[in-house]
Amino acid sequence: MTTVEELKKKVQELKAKLALTQGNTGPVRQKIDVMSSEVVDSNPYSRLMALKRMGIVDNYEKIRELSVAVVGVGGVGSVTAEMLTRCGIGKLILFDYDKVELANMNRLFFQPHQAGLSKVDAAAATLQNINPDVTIDAYNYNITTVENFQKFCDTIKTGSLTGGPVDVVLSCVDNFEARMAINTACNELDQKWFESGVSENAVSGHIQFIIPGETACFACAPPLVVASKIDEKTLKREGVCAASLPTTMGIVAGFLVQNTLKYLLGFGTVTHYLGYSALTDFFPTMSLKPNPQCDDSFCRARQTEFQARPQPVEVATEVTEDLAPVHADNEWGICLVDENVPEEEDSTNLKLTEGVQLAYTVPVDNSTPESSTGGAVAASELSLEELMQHLPDWKLPPLI
Amino acid sequence: MTTVEELKKKVQELKAKLALTQGNTGPVRQKIDVMSSEVVDSNPYSRLMALKRMGIVDNYEKIRELSVAVVGVGGVGSVTAEMLTRCGIGKLILFDYDKVELANMNRLFFQPHQAGLSKVDAAAATLQNINPDVTIDAYNYNITTVENFQKFCDTIKTGSLTGGPVDVVLSCVDNFEARMAINTACNELDQKWFESGVSENAVSGHIQFIIPGETACFACAPPLVVASKIDEKTLKREGVCAASLPTTMGIVAGFLVQNTLKYLLGFGTVTHYLGYSALTDFFPTMSLKPNPQCDDSFCRARQTEFQARPQPVEVATEVTEDLAPVHADNEWGICLVDENVPEEEDSTNLKLTEGVQLAYTVPVDNSTPESSTGGAVAASELSLEELMQHLPDWKLPPLI
Repeated sequence: MTTVEELKKKVQELKAKLALTQGNTGPVRQKIDVMSSEVVDSNPYSRLMALKRMGIVDNYEKIRELSVAVVGVGGVGSVTAEMLTRCGIGKLILFDYDKVELANMNRLFFQPHQAGLSKVDAAAATLQNINPDVTIDAYNYNITTVENFQKFCDTIKTGSLTGGPVDVVLSCVDNFEARMAINTACNELDQKWFESGVSENAVSGHIQFIIPGETACFACAPPLVVASKIDEKTLKREGVCAASLPTTMGIVAGFLVQNTLKYLLGFGTVTHYLGYSALTDFFPTMSLKPNPQCDDSFCRARQTEFQARPQPVEVATEVTEDLAPVHADNEWGICLVDENVPEEEDSTNLKLTEGVQLAYTVPVDNSTPESSTGGAVAASELSLEELMQHLPDWKLPPLI
Repeated sequence: MTTVEELKKKVQELKAKLALTQGNTGPVRQKIDVMSSEVVDSNPYSRLMALKRMGIVDNYEKIRELSVAVVGVGGVGSVTAEMLTRCGIGKLILFDYDKVELANMNRLFFQPHQAGLSKVDAAAATLQNINPDVTIDAYNYNITTVENFQKFCDTIKTGSLTGGPVDVVLSCVDNFEARMAINTACNELDQKWFESGVSENAVSGHIQFIIPGETACFACAPPLVVASKIDEKTLKREGVCAASLPTTMGIVAGFLVQNTLKYLLGFGTVTHYLGYSALTDFFPTMSLKPNPQCDDSFCRARQTEFQARPQPVEVATEVTEDLAPVHADNEWGICLVDENVPEEEDSTNLKLTEGVQLAYTVPVDNSTPESSTGGAVAASELSLEELMQHLPDWKLPPLI
């Protein structure tokens, strides 16, 4: 179908069909005033409110007061937005400037009939239909232009349900420039955010929690940045695209929202960096200290502010530590499994290249039956690059 | 509005509106005969075929010849089916006997307008719309009744695209009886399958690859079975339901399909047991040997057959080991991080209670810079229960 006449006829047909259904174009379910724990088939929140009875979350209904910005509504961002919507988040603010294409159909969420629509509009319509209780704002622009960047900052600063800053920003973008824009905004606004990414070969991904002044920002760790920059150039070639899988992207979105829920609702332990290597099912965790020589002046200012504040005994993630953290005793040090070094030599805060400090925490370091306080021990002083080479099966993957 | 582009956009908008009001308007995109690598917006397979150029999968288009049965189309099964559909699986066979309810809306996939429809019919319609290239069979019955069990077995045995057995069965059910029915069928049919589950408190989950005769079947490991049996009774009380989260269920579905793809397309290493603990982001992996005294006579028969076959050096998962497996040297032994025992004492095949043998593999056991061949060492002889107590942050969770 290509001619104007044929298309006009199709438009008329569709309008006629739509007119027939006008009686039920709104959301199928009605808005719900108060989240209920009642166990009936018609209650969309019963399985979530059961988290209270199960002793996981103290105050689940608090989620309705919270606001989350999702930047990038692609393979990770769309699933992220859907999970938050189904969890009953108070407000969702979506940013993207791309259109849905059939080439996106190998990831979850968008459907073929949405091809050609803006991602934020298509997503907002679907999400509102799934849960009419969620307030959804959609912004169809590129946050990296000068004008839009200011609008983006203003929205982050005043976009919550009460007119204040959003509770967290989730970066689900696929390029270096957008990550840097979010980083710049969040450092300036002192806004906590999660960065996420998947590799161009589709079989690795990660999430990273960034607390300005407390953990490394996106500009603090040069090797990460360089890797991404190189990669994007190679993918700009004609006729070449990155690979992607609905599995890897769904898993990364799951990690992102799970840690967001832990942070927002105060249960469990928020992981600062969680990687995923699909080929071997390997899940490295680590923490990066901010770089005192970071190029971002607001990052350096936040670091100064953080150091001036009284330091809590635990790392300050503002999470209720109702479970003992797995790596409490070596939060910031470099930690690699090494049978030859006794545990008490566990040294922290080693100086790395470029002022970056990195902690590699071993997920199973408490598994020794004889001891419950960590089998991980310190490696000798290594540069960030050297350390990365020694991490088994884990290279910081080129991002898309 | 006169230009073709504007009219095309209008057609897309109207189709999208119509789809939202009606659920499904039939597939929007046409069937595609041959998977193409061409990088154009209209190609739904470009990002998947890019896995070949990236060196991850040798022969991605083989997926169109493969058939997968998904038993249970709930929080895990529906997402599992959607991921496989978007990956372009040849044939999908769905089993469920439940209806969609608003109480399911806290998980991905189903939408409010589908409330009241059978899960398999609603899922088949949505999935066919997403990818018309997939052959989808939907069976709306309970596989645990005598009559249906036989029909289920026949479908598994003859349901592939070529009339032979399906390539793999994925269990996404939420109860002990259905898991045992799948186990019985797969032992008898010598059918490889994956079991999956999430905990009733919504913050743990697992997948398990079961190769009859080679790895423990669902009846081989009594503690797992008992835990599930107790749990279900407690949940049968009036006014009480298990908690669930779209995050945990999406992650488990992602692990399930990712390992299914690795198995079917021969890349990476298939993990025999992968657990997920959301509160601490802990991911235990292990392997269970079959129990020579298993109650299931077909399991015992498969064990005899397996032992009579020439044993490959690597564990026989029929996966092309194009990457070195992480735990090649201790596949079946009990392995816990223990600095006090030298590596060469790594003993395998310790006899446990009830004839069950368990391997706990440490994901980061190669992380010692000085050595690339494993920091995991053998623990002393432990019963399965004792071992479980020593696994940090990991208890076999009550399943739903």
